Amino acid sequence: MTGSTDDHTVFIGNKPFMNYVTGVVMQFTTQGASEVIIKSRGKFISRAVDVAEVAAKRFLEGNVAVKDITINSEEFDNKEGKKVRVSSIEITLGKK
Amino acid sequence: MTGSTDDHTVFIGNKPFMNYVTGVVMQFTTQGASEVIIKSRGKFISRAVDVAEVAAKRFLEGNVAVKDITINSEEFDNKEGKKVRVSSIEITLGKK
Repeated sequence: MTGSTDDHTVFIGNKPFMNYVTGVVMQFTTQGASEVIIKSRGKFISRAVDVAEVAAKRFLEGNVAVKDITINSEEFDNKEGKKVRVSSIEITLGKK
Repeated sequence: MTGSTDDHTVFIGNKPFMNYVTGVVMQFTTQGASEVIIKSRGKFISRAVDVAEVAAKRFLEGNVAVKDITINSEEFDNKEGKKVRVSSIEITLGKK
């Protein structure tokens, strides 16, 4: 499934939006997940929030809710030797 | 101060990035805030996370940390009468 790995984690990138929503929903409905972690970095953080909201409120309404959200960031040197900080988010959805 | 309102809340939009970071940092350092709430919607959610991370880890390191994060979304009809869902985030930074 697009953007998924084992262990009920979905990484959000630039594939079509509904691929990710479907990925999250199917983890709960056909893979028996009790929790799904939605992860993303940089500009895709907004998208991760959209995926979590649409999955939880439109497709799994009443059954799944946001259990935990964490943010983090890493600083590294880019090609020009300049320090760049990239943020990340992890949103855990869980069965109610 | 850019993007700020009363009550230690900073709304993130499309002004220069460091305006928002400075806004958050100054709430703690010169306004005596014990908590600052960083809010944003839609595509600016990624930016809100960046602001929170840079403020907490670069400028206020050791003194301020993320205390709470909530996400939400609202569905409304756009100009074409189509349903659109817009996500939002609130990140609460607090003194350690």
